[in-house]
Amino acid sequence: MDIQSVSYIIDTLYAIFAMTLIIFMVPGFAMLEAGIVRTKNVTAVLTINTLIYAIASMAFLLIGYSIAFGDFGADGMSKWAAFLFQMAFVGKVVNIMSGGVSERAKVIPLAFFTIIMAAILYPIVVNVSWGSDFLDGTFLDLTMYDLAGSTVIHSTGGWALLAAILIIGARKGRYTKDGGIRVIPASNIPLLTLGAFLLWIGWFGFNGGSVGSIASKENADAVALTIMNTNTAGLAGAIMVAIIMYFMYKKLDLTMILNGALGGLVAVTAGPDLYDIYTPILIGAVGGALVVFGVSFFDKLRIDDPVGALSVHLVNGIWGTLAVGIFASNGTDITLLGQIKGIVVVGLFAFISSYIILFIINKIVSLRADEDEEMQGLDVEECGIEAYPEFKRAF
Amino acid sequence: MDIQSVSYIIDTLYAIFAMTLIIFMVPGFAMLEAGIVRTKNVTAVLTINTLIYAIASMAFLLIGYSIAFGDFGADGMSKWAAFLFQMAFVGKVVNIMSGGVSERAKVIPLAFFTIIMAAILYPIVVNVSWGSDFLDGTFLDLTMYDLAGSTVIHSTGGWALLAAILIIGARKGRYTKDGGIRVIPASNIPLLTLGAFLLWIGWFGFNGGSVGSIASKENADAVALTIMNTNTAGLAGAIMVAIIMYFMYKKLDLTMILNGALGGLVAVTAGPDLYDIYTPILIGAVGGALVVFGVSFFDKLRIDDPVGALSVHLVNGIWGTLAVGIFASNGTDITLLGQIKGIVVVGLFAFISSYIILFIINKIVSLRADEDEEMQGLDVEECGIEAYPEFKRAF
Amino acid sequence: MDIQSVSYIIDTLYAIFAMTLIIFMVPGFAMLEAGIVRTKNVTAVLTINTLIYAIASMAFLLIGYSIAFGDFGADGMSKWAAFLFQMAFVGKVVNIMSGGVSERAKVIPLAFFTIIMAAILYPIVVNVSWGSDFLDGTFLDLTMYDLAGSTVIHSTGGWALLAAILIIGARKGRYTKDGGIRVIPASNIPLLTLGAFLLWIGWFGFNGGSVGSIASKENADAVALTIMNTNTAGLAGAIMVAIIMYFMYKKLDLTMILNGALGGLVAVTAGPDLYDIYTPILIGAVGGALVVFGVSFFDKLRIDDPVGALSVHLVNGIWGTLAVGIFASNGTDITLLGQIKGIVVVGLFAFISSYIILFIINKIVSLRADEDEEMQGLDVEECGIEAYPEFKRAF
Repeated sequence: MDIQSVSYIIDTLYAIFAMTLIIFMVPGFAMLEAGIVRTKNVTAVLTINTLIYAIASMAFLLIGYSIAFGDFGADGMSKWAAFLFQMAFVGKVVNIMSGGVSERAKVIPLAFFTIIMAAILYPIVVNVSWGSDFLDGTFLDLTMYDLAGSTVIHSTGGWALLAAILIIGARKGRYTKDGGIRVIPASNIPLLTLGAFLLWIGWFGFNGGSVGSIASKENADAVALTIMNTNTAGLAGAIMVAIIMYFMYKKLDLTMILNGALGGLVAVTAGPDLYDIYTPILIGAVGGALVVFGVSFFDKLRIDDPVGALSVHLVNGIWGTLAVGIFASNGTDITLLGQIKGIVVVGLFAFISSYIILFIINKIVSLRADEDEEMQGLDVEECGIEAYPEFKRAF
Repeated sequence: MDIQSVSYIIDTLYAIFAMTLIIFMVPGFAMLEAGIVRTKNVTAVLTINTLIYAIASMAFLLIGYSIAFGDFGADGMSKWAAFLFQMAFVGKVVNIMSGGVSERAKVIPLAFFTIIMAAILYPIVVNVSWGSDFLDGTFLDLTMYDLAGSTVIHSTGGWALLAAILIIGARKGRYTKDGGIRVIPASNIPLLTLGAFLLWIGWFGFNGGSVGSIASKENADAVALTIMNTNTAGLAGAIMVAIIMYFMYKKLDLTMILNGALGGLVAVTAGPDLYDIYTPILIGAVGGALVVFGVSFFDKLRIDDPVGALSVHLVNGIWGTLAVGIFASNGTDITLLGQIKGIVVVGLFAFISSYIILFIINKIVSLRADEDEEMQGLDVEECGIEAYPEFKRAF
Repeated sequence: MDIQSVSYIIDTLYAIFAMTLIIFMVPGFAMLEAGIVRTKNVTAVLTINTLIYAIASMAFLLIGYSIAFGDFGADGMSKWAAFLFQMAFVGKVVNIMSGGVSERAKVIPLAFFTIIMAAILYPIVVNVSWGSDFLDGTFLDLTMYDLAGSTVIHSTGGWALLAAILIIGARKGRYTKDGGIRVIPASNIPLLTLGAFLLWIGWFGFNGGSVGSIASKENADAVALTIMNTNTAGLAGAIMVAIIMYFMYKKLDLTMILNGALGGLVAVTAGPDLYDIYTPILIGAVGGALVVFGVSFFDKLRIDDPVGALSVHLVNGIWGTLAVGIFASNGTDITLLGQIKGIVVVGLFAFISSYIILFIINKIVSLRADEDEEMQGLDVEECGIEAYPEFKRAF
């Protein structure tokens, strides 16, 4: 081994390590969502998550990757490792979206949407943000800094979700005619907790790997700082929500605390390499608070999002992208205006294109399960199997 | 640190990383099988899985490793890292086997079989396939290429399972006298899903680590390609089964989809470093289809395999080893005939030796729980604890 | 990249890898404890575990780290990676403690204790043991060798737990007036098993990372040997308990077997880099036996520890620290007396300081839930959500 190869080898190993952590987010999302939805919809949610990983990754391999980045290829590491790292991202965009329409969206239409998102829509977002210079100067003199995808991944998924909810509507019985909101409790808190921590761990790979290289002292520092700041924002989000919950309700609602951690993680994702080690405390705490108030806000608008994905991913994706403009513009060419432009351009594209595609799919095969199926739960009709057939239901 | 040491260090780190991923397969198998069997047998299955890891690894440390590879030692990395990587494999062979006899095989006899398998039988298979030149030219001029064990691990475990099922028979009530088959639904789909994805992630270490070194540009490429192709075959297996399920039943049976993914992963395991990036799509898709038809096939023969391990591991272990001969013989010394010879030699040895050992154990201590114990579930009698004591059963 | 940087880069990557494995212990502890406690207390346990990670890590970032190690900084790797690795440890001390007071200790008082422990008490223990030379020669000529914290982590957590149990008392109904002990079965064995294996895997990072560097051939060997010996002790602990269980009760109690593995892992933690590859078999087997007899012993003293943490962490923490003096003193400056001094000094400090802090907290806000809350389960009162609301309880 010569010294020139060492960097190539270490970065390949590092990308594989980061990719592996991200793949833990597949069971992470699956367990989180399976823990939140009612038992009668658990198998359907798990099936959707499984198919999203399979279909999105395959579509990205066959079509999406070349739209996003051109040919297979990478500087400084194996091109296959570079592909694997990028491939690990793609399903996440749809995971974000599918969670928020769970308990009423059918599997097959979501699978079709997954193909379009992973093969075309997401790759276009990636291309204009990370893969080409299209938005970097040439368009409105825009420079958006978004290290690991507060906008590119999380907001994109969130906008797609908003489009989907507008088309598909709320779950039956969620909002009553007199303006009330029926609480639908999460069915399995251990699963939800496990899922949240698998996501948290996956984030180390997501953000840490997005630095792109660990093969210099500077890069090694940047990677370690990125992971440290990522984690800190998650801590702050969880703590902030715990404090809010305690003072508002005297009850430490764990589902909100974990969503607060995830909100903090989303918020720091745009620039964890740019902050000192204390700024992520503020960014994450605000992120946590945004989750609490976001969940109420969307419920007031009767936008029914069972897993809180709009608050976690869309609201915090926007907040995190703005935060880079607020806290990291000093001495760089990052501007708040550039960040806003990025948010708007990606947001418009993601929302409109998702809306059109989902609208068309909905015309061909209804996105929504029919009323009987929804009441009975999606598991039997969609998958033919119940999640917990031997366990007697309390209601 | 001098340049000569860098390779040693990186490969040690890499082997530890790969080993760690494989150890995730221990809870992976445990959760998969705990999710499939009925609640009354869950603790027994988890106990068997735990003991297999403990006993197989210990037996391999004390006896098996030296049979497989001679003394502790390795070129190019720490000998302890080389041991750890190999040790991580050994329990898997018995995991494959124990899953298929669950719900009626007792724990203690399986523990005895684990000792023999890990101390003697599996090490002999490894030695003739990977550790010595016995089968490489000297015997029938055989060269079998099997990178990470489609034959050495998966078929070996599958043949042992077939021997065990022939001795132990089907679960009570599984096959009725009029030729009917009673469907026994999986009891916990989230656990099953979690287990399948932990296995999937473990596979990256299994196959990626089997390249043996990452410490050159060529090896780094081979490792990354191996992991990419491994993953692609899993994707293809899942998608293929989803398509088959949809067109056959209009129901996306998640247990079959996940088994399809595992089938694809087994199938690619013999040669993921040899294929271009598209061939694994075909190999994995065929692997998925083989799972669907294999499950029906074995049920028709009244070979009762609750987890589908014969289809996933034995059938696809054979298919994957053949696939190397079909798709990777060009310009290499790999031949389809050599692959077939390897399949036959290892298969005969694994089946016959397992059958003899299991037959003897069965004479000394019955492999099978008695009828009352089976009806009541194995948990109480074998382990003294129920898996879910506070949950009311639906039936 | 120059050759001098390679070591820095590899050790940074290695520390991040090790840290990541340790973070898997967060869901590890959470799942283990959620599986052991009754369903009515599961959400509370998960909430405590989540908050411990969030609060302990944050307190360590803001205050504790500088007490333990002085300023941020590290030789030979990124200072942020060095921080991350140390940060991953700190919550574990409180996890050990919180598990043993579960089913009756309230969340908020434990959260306050977490702040004090992570900001002050644990950092002092670390400082005198690892961070300064206070106890190394200057005080009683003490040299305690404790690679990864049999005493510093596990006993410290165990002593804090003992202090807490003495203050808080046993669960209602656990010990009857006529001297009987009511068995309270674990509610979810798959979760418990999953948690135990996540802890096991985390231990590879915990102990392996504590070697401090992998960036030389000697260090690479030390790391690999450390992980191998760590694993071997876990195997031996599990096997030993299985044998004891079988001969005492003819039932393979999986909760005890897994605790036996954890006991073996704790016991080897003080010196896994110092032993040959066979000594950990003895250390782990004794560790497993100590778990079995420890659990009975504490029950006889009516010290109620639902998860067996005193036996696993305190007893084996002491045993493991002694074991270094017994098995590794040859040709080193390690002495049994030095190990005993370390155990006593850290033990006195940890027990007394924890007792005082918990006593004060208990005066201000009662540590213990009131009787009604305990009977009803802590989930509703503390968290406002049940863990499994849709599942009908058997009792």
